[in-house]
Amino acid sequence: MSKKFQYQQLFTFAKRIFLKIGCSEHDAEIACSSLLKADLRGVDSHGVARLSGYVRLWEVKRINSKPRLSITYETPSTAVVDGDGGLGLVVAPYAMQVAIDKARSVGSGWVSVKNSNHFGIAGYHAMQALKEDMIGIAMTNASPLVAPTFSIEKLLGTNPIAIAIPAGNEEPFVADFATTTAANGKLEMLQRKHLEAPTGWIQTKSGHPSVNPNELKEGGALLPLGGDTEHGSHKGYALGAIVDIFSGVLSGANYGPWVPPFPAYLQVAEGLPGEGIGHFFGAMRIDAFRPSSDFKRHMDKWIKRFKNAKTIKGQDRVYIPGQIETEIENIRIKEGIPLLHQVVENLVNLGEKYDIPFPV
Amino acid sequence: MSKKFQYQQLFTFAKRIFLKIGCSEHDAEIACSSLLKADLRGVDSHGVARLSGYVRLWEVKRINSKPRLSITYETPSTAVVDGDGGLGLVVAPYAMQVAIDKARSVGSGWVSVKNSNHFGIAGYHAMQALKEDMIGIAMTNASPLVAPTFSIEKLLGTNPIAIAIPAGNEEPFVADFATTTAANGKLEMLQRKHLEAPTGWIQTKSGHPSVNPNELKEGGALLPLGGDTEHGSHKGYALGAIVDIFSGVLSGANYGPWVPPFPAYLQVAEGLPGEGIGHFFGAMRIDAFRPSSDFKRHMDKWIKRFKNAKTIKGQDRVYIPGQIETEIENIRIKEGIPLLHQVVENLVNLGEKYDIPFPV
Repeated sequence: MSKKFQYQQLFTFAKRIFLKIGCSEHDAEIACSSLLKADLRGVDSHGVARLSGYVRLWEVKRINSKPRLSITYETPSTAVVDGDGGLGLVVAPYAMQVAIDKARSVGSGWVSVKNSNHFGIAGYHAMQALKEDMIGIAMTNASPLVAPTFSIEKLLGTNPIAIAIPAGNEEPFVADFATTTAANGKLEMLQRKHLEAPTGWIQTKSGHPSVNPNELKEGGALLPLGGDTEHGSHKGYALGAIVDIFSGVLSGANYGPWVPPFPAYLQVAEGLPGEGIGHFFGAMRIDAFRPSSDFKRHMDKWIKRFKNAKTIKGQDRVYIPGQIETEIENIRIKEGIPLLHQVVENLVNLGEKYDIPFPV
Repeated sequence: MSKKFQYQQLFTFAKRIFLKIGCSEHDAEIACSSLLKADLRGVDSHGVARLSGYVRLWEVKRINSKPRLSITYETPSTAVVDGDGGLGLVVAPYAMQVAIDKARSVGSGWVSVKNSNHFGIAGYHAMQALKEDMIGIAMTNASPLVAPTFSIEKLLGTNPIAIAIPAGNEEPFVADFATTTAANGKLEMLQRKHLEAPTGWIQTKSGHPSVNPNELKEGGALLPLGGDTEHGSHKGYALGAIVDIFSGVLSGANYGPWVPPFPAYLQVAEGLPGEGIGHFFGAMRIDAFRPSSDFKRHMDKWIKRFKNAKTIKGQDRVYIPGQIETEIENIRIKEGIPLLHQVVENLVNLGEKYDIPFPV
């Protein structure tokens, strides 16, 4: 069902595609780094499997491959970045760098972004702070698929949050999660395998619980983390809303039901209140709070204590957020990235269309 | 079962108690404001019902009623505050003010706090930013009651997060929630009424699902938001962990299983890695991102759209985070605060012990 490819093979192919649609050398490389981090870390739904989706957005002129990125508003610790309709994969690293630079100079940096597009996995952007000895934060709003508690309307995206925290000898702590019970990628997996979804993931168009992974196509909605009020769905809804407001309302991007959809065949709503989709990034220098070596010593102690926690019978380990993804990354760097047959076929077709053989 | 008291009555009583245990006039007033905001907003578990709990901590010398609050480390946008073992109800407003002052000068302010105690409801502290036209953020770690996903050990507190966002004509957005499926206060309510808890809230000491609201006394644990992995409990666990790290590890407070418990009769662990419990506060000036009037206009549009969302049959409304609490607050300011018989009895006893009649 799947075949393995080397990271460098996929990088080269994706880079040629990005160059072909008009990206600069610099932008194409950055776009590939952020896109392929998803494949490396096992978030297969957000990696090269989406390459043709980005290209289709460019084809319908909803992505500008030559954006002029700029800071439109700023204070010593904050900024708004205008993505000029560029690939989120390129806009986000620029904005995260602004946050990092501000943190270097005044302790922390916070950047809200408008006029962008989908940025791959949030974790990649948050992790950029790690090598600077900073905590990194990344979030984004997205196409409306999620119904707030008690509603039958889809008003929020899966709006992920990522937070990366450096450690000493231990691997860093990297949380990266959708603010829904389950990310859309997990539903797609069930669709492919013709399996039912657990209750608490989705509801029908009239708001009843559903186990049909295709329910969204019939007017249903994803549910906020918690699933129902008895299990705290108002908390997941609040989290998704905060991501939407920090990313969209603070920057001047679109928000709520007006966020433009990722699939190029879906219409963009009329009378939009903002520009493009929005992101939000943060960076905090560790040594803006305490000496970095002290922090890392305690962070290692924290991680070890949680790793060594007694498990429920039948479970081997208690995981630190990001641990599973880091283990997958270490394997895939060595052994290659497995791509499903459909994904390979999709890349072959994309390559034929743009005269770039796949695999390279 | 309950009797109503005027806000001012409860304030005066609580203030006399705080003065009696040695607080300054200034600190006693601040402590009452933060404590009683819980009663006003309907979070009855965190208000005057806990007054005797704070006093007992002072009685066993775990609270310093005359703390010398100080900034021990800082950059233009960040600080660490040492609470000197003071009441969290007093330390937190001081630290939040530091965050607000920094935001005024460089756009945002971020303060991690060590050597503090329980601070009442997180929402109160986040809301201090609203009148300054800022977004406010507050979180705290707390006594370990929660088992990470796959673990049977209680390593995290209910670790709440509050985020307050100003609006224009609409009421502000105020999210304030524990990072567990259900807060401990809700379990206490079920205990009093001899009712079962929904599954997904608690597990037994060996990690099986439980509906017994008294399970914690028998070695069980609360569950992170999500309840189980199939419903995203690793996300609730990650959120609780982030609160713990921002509050405890960044400041030099205790963290994880070492956070000192609120009940004075419970032993504090030995070999603590830090000082007291930890909090984390943030403030971001709205006009550090875009003109405040633009932001508020869009925030109003956001709120109206969500308020007017189509509801599931049988539900009247889609709520904005904080809306229910604000409605309760408006009623209780006029009509008084209802206290359960047990709470009144507890206050009468406390009053007798400290020679202050209740009600005043």
